[in-house]
Amino acid sequence: MARQKILVLGGGFGGVFCAKHLQKLLGKDHDIELVCENNYFVFQPLLPEVAAGTINAEDAVSPLRALLPGVKFRMADIRRIDHANQRVYVMQGRKRVMVPLSYDQLVIASGQQVDLSRFPGLQEHALRMKNLADAHRLRNHIINCLEHADVTHDPQLKRRLLTFIVAGGGFSGVETTGEMEEMLTRSLKFYPNITRAEIRIMLIEYLPRILPELPEKLADYTALQLKKRGIEMLLGVGIKSATGTMVETMDGQRLETATIVATIGNGPSQLLKALPVELERGKLATDSFFQVKGMERVWALGDAALIPLPEDKDGKPRFAPPTAQFASREALCLARNMQCLLTEKPLKPFDYKPLGSLASIGAYKAVGEMFGIKLSGTFAWILWRTFYLGMLPGGMTKLRVGINWFLDYCFPRTTVKFKQWSEPSARYLRFAQGDIVFYPGQIPEGFYTIVKGTLGVTMKGPDGQQFIKTMGKGEHLGERELLGQIPGQPSATTGAVTALEETTVLVMDRKDFRRFTKVFPALEQYFEEYIESHYPEYLKPVPIEDPQQKIAN
Amino acid sequence: MARQKILVLGGGFGGVFCAKHLQKLLGKDHDIELVCENNYFVFQPLLPEVAAGTINAEDAVSPLRALLPGVKFRMADIRRIDHANQRVYVMQGRKRVMVPLSYDQLVIASGQQVDLSRFPGLQEHALRMKNLADAHRLRNHIINCLEHADVTHDPQLKRRLLTFIVAGGGFSGVETTGEMEEMLTRSLKFYPNITRAEIRIMLIEYLPRILPELPEKLADYTALQLKKRGIEMLLGVGIKSATGTMVETMDGQRLETATIVATIGNGPSQLLKALPVELERGKLATDSFFQVKGMERVWALGDAALIPLPEDKDGKPRFAPPTAQFASREALCLARNMQCLLTEKPLKPFDYKPLGSLASIGAYKAVGEMFGIKLSGTFAWILWRTFYLGMLPGGMTKLRVGINWFLDYCFPRTTVKFKQWSEPSARYLRFAQGDIVFYPGQIPEGFYTIVKGTLGVTMKGPDGQQFIKTMGKGEHLGERELLGQIPGQPSATTGAVTALEETTVLVMDRKDFRRFTKVFPALEQYFEEYIESHYPEYLKPVPIEDPQQKIAN
Repeated sequence: MARQKILVLGGGFGGVFCAKHLQKLLGKDHDIELVCENNYFVFQPLLPEVAAGTINAEDAVSPLRALLPGVKFRMADIRRIDHANQRVYVMQGRKRVMVPLSYDQLVIASGQQVDLSRFPGLQEHALRMKNLADAHRLRNHIINCLEHADVTHDPQLKRRLLTFIVAGGGFSGVETTGEMEEMLTRSLKFYPNITRAEIRIMLIEYLPRILPELPEKLADYTALQLKKRGIEMLLGVGIKSATGTMVETMDGQRLETATIVATIGNGPSQLLKALPVELERGKLATDSFFQVKGMERVWALGDAALIPLPEDKDGKPRFAPPTAQFASREALCLARNMQCLLTEKPLKPFDYKPLGSLASIGAYKAVGEMFGIKLSGTFAWILWRTFYLGMLPGGMTKLRVGINWFLDYCFPRTTVKFKQWSEPSARYLRFAQGDIVFYPGQIPEGFYTIVKGTLGVTMKGPDGQQFIKTMGKGEHLGERELLGQIPGQPSATTGAVTALEETTVLVMDRKDFRRFTKVFPALEQYFEEYIESHYPEYLKPVPIEDPQQKIAN
Repeated sequence: MARQKILVLGGGFGGVFCAKHLQKLLGKDHDIELVCENNYFVFQPLLPEVAAGTINAEDAVSPLRALLPGVKFRMADIRRIDHANQRVYVMQGRKRVMVPLSYDQLVIASGQQVDLSRFPGLQEHALRMKNLADAHRLRNHIINCLEHADVTHDPQLKRRLLTFIVAGGGFSGVETTGEMEEMLTRSLKFYPNITRAEIRIMLIEYLPRILPELPEKLADYTALQLKKRGIEMLLGVGIKSATGTMVETMDGQRLETATIVATIGNGPSQLLKALPVELERGKLATDSFFQVKGMERVWALGDAALIPLPEDKDGKPRFAPPTAQFASREALCLARNMQCLLTEKPLKPFDYKPLGSLASIGAYKAVGEMFGIKLSGTFAWILWRTFYLGMLPGGMTKLRVGINWFLDYCFPRTTVKFKQWSEPSARYLRFAQGDIVFYPGQIPEGFYTIVKGTLGVTMKGPDGQQFIKTMGKGEHLGERELLGQIPGQPSATTGAVTALEETTVLVMDRKDFRRFTKVFPALEQYFEEYIESHYPEYLKPVPIEDPQQKIAN
């Protein structure tokens, strides 16, 4: 068979292990490429420990390139799957250029997205626990609350700063609550004006019990343990809405808080929604070989996929649950099926019986079930750590996490609070005479306003002749792409934009610009008028050109 | 003597060690408080190792509260020193409220600031090496360049991405260059499309030699070592300007690069510039007891202070150099003098002969001088690590840094690249009916535009009667304080702003809003007209009220 290009989207459990197995089985005869917006793999179950400061963010992750020798790796945002032409459009590099990647076989392992839009205010005010940045942010937020509560003289504000609410009683919510309690309690010795009695930690779950993944007996044990440690549980109660100072529950309680952690609300990503197939339960429906129904040459696994398992005894359909254990087993089975396909052997349906599941609840305790045996307490916790250390890919990461655990056991928890590492969103750029500000086809990273100097835009006149339009102080660029076109589609700028003399521009980040222009009437009106007078052709559909033709990047 | 309130500003070497000694000597009878915008201490000389990934950012720092038992600690931005009234105004908390702190004795240890305004384009495009966020950003930037260079097909872009330029040949510049070279070389095994020959690393120094702090022989040795490792040195050449794609030197060379690290351009901070004394060499001139000339009850040390040492043999004046070694010795001497003052004993002038100095240049080599003996090579490097480990405050940090060094020696360098942990600058906030949006006297964290709902502003009419002004969709708040008043002075909002129904607002960060409004003509014009028609009293000076009277925070 001719050399095939196998493209894997996503660097989570499913994607990474699938690429690894594919490389092993097929790497000699075919090309495997993995695309992910981050260049590292993060072991999702450890996120609560990162949020609680047990493990450093930098130690909880493994570089993908080191994990995947032989696999071509590309750090890029995945923007659009053009299935008809067997291409994936990604945005890569410092200059944000759109690059099309062609494929013969496509593996989608890009997971799900958090969607909190059903709960007014939660989208705006809730912290999440989905990725490493979320965990890091939660940790800094908690320490910020302690720092502020230690110096404020306002009792109401202090109470609010010291109330911590977690929404969702699944694995992620329970682990986060437990770890958070341990962190808060252990940090108190450094905050002389805060006592444990002033701290309120609450777990809110819509179902009448926590940990639906585990038997009821273990859930009860966990609830008892958490209660003993002073954690309040609100079960059978949904969250209705939130603001920056409180959470409102379905039964009308208003809980004042500065910290809401949402572990609820998983939904499909924009990438999946844009595909020409109907999603089932917000996921890509596959057959039992991982092939996406209705899309040839496309496979899916992990949280993004709805994978059938053999029916249960009563003939009811079953599907693979979205856990790390399943994802890593799916990865192996998918890779083998891909090999079967390429070597024209029959494919094998997926089935897997998990070993069990364990949840750490902080303070050296865990709960779970292994090989059908219920486990709880310190022994389960040691098993949990051993098991997870085993699952962690990469020897270096295992060692680093192990050292973190050891240090955390021996020493007080660190209470360092990092500033956000961010640049201000609006930043100045300087161009020397002759510098290219935009390449043809380049997606502007934001809205450009000229502070001083002159830019020249290469344009085509109605007679087909090229000419240079000059722009000076106060004039701006990028509004068309930012306000009108579908995100991720190449801009219709005719040609390059060049600095005709030394020029400084202010760039406002695209997301900020869009949000601000949308809600601020003076700006909205200004751009409406501006676009009407400057781009009368604006409402006509713009043909998408293949950017590969124009730029090499 | 009556109980005195001693306020220390700044959490660097000078501030932290001074507060520690003050607590030991005077903590029983007086109150010591330290204010710093971060709640951690960072050991400045380790920053190049953080930038090169030898040490995790999280392991290179120590929590200030753990370092300073007994000292009251406050995490806050220091905004203004009101010396006449013996008060320091700080901005603290999530809601950014201005709080005045009174003092009997003030110790200024707030260091210097980077000022690159003399070099067009450097301000906008150079990375810095001043604090932990800088080091972290540099590391992520370097890895980003490697990721991009590995997948691009544009040879010019690749060359630019793989050219790394450091400006400044002092300790910081040389160490950063050396560490960077080691990091790049060791990371290459993970980037199959990049060879060492494609990487260009340059050090540019205005003086004809590097390391002016050390004898010429050692500087020559260092230069030779760096050259052997393929680092180019441009000596006796200043930097003229920069853009996002190149550096221009004084002698007219244009060096294409995507990475400029500036270790040059130290200058006084805004805080010092606003003080009612003349700065000397950009610093606060003190007498030899650390008392600031012309300001009673105010002391200064570290990089912020110009501290006289005994004259040299030829009668020429000498000043304490801005090094960690000097700062920690100054801290002890200052604390003792403070004790002498408070117990009415004579003060002692400062003098100190440093043990020596060492610079690590990466690849297991260092150079330096100790007790008058010149040292270089691997032995000096081991000495450097031992010496710095000894100077690191806090056992936990020593251990963590030690482990990082050990792991780095044994394993490949990690190439994980973190996204910026930032929130978008323009974010939505939701308020429930009755929620307070602004307290009286609260500094707006940005520019508020109402997306939906209604806000009520409590105002005073000309008759002295209070009334509520309502504001709806598209109306905005915060522009007066953001556009007009001196940053950090309390806003003149008459009363509280409350949500009259469920309300969503979009907040644009203050810095972004200021920059954007300043350069975008349509907005500038809009606000000029808006303020003229809405606040006719706008140009009158607004009396600064004491916020303590109104809010407890």
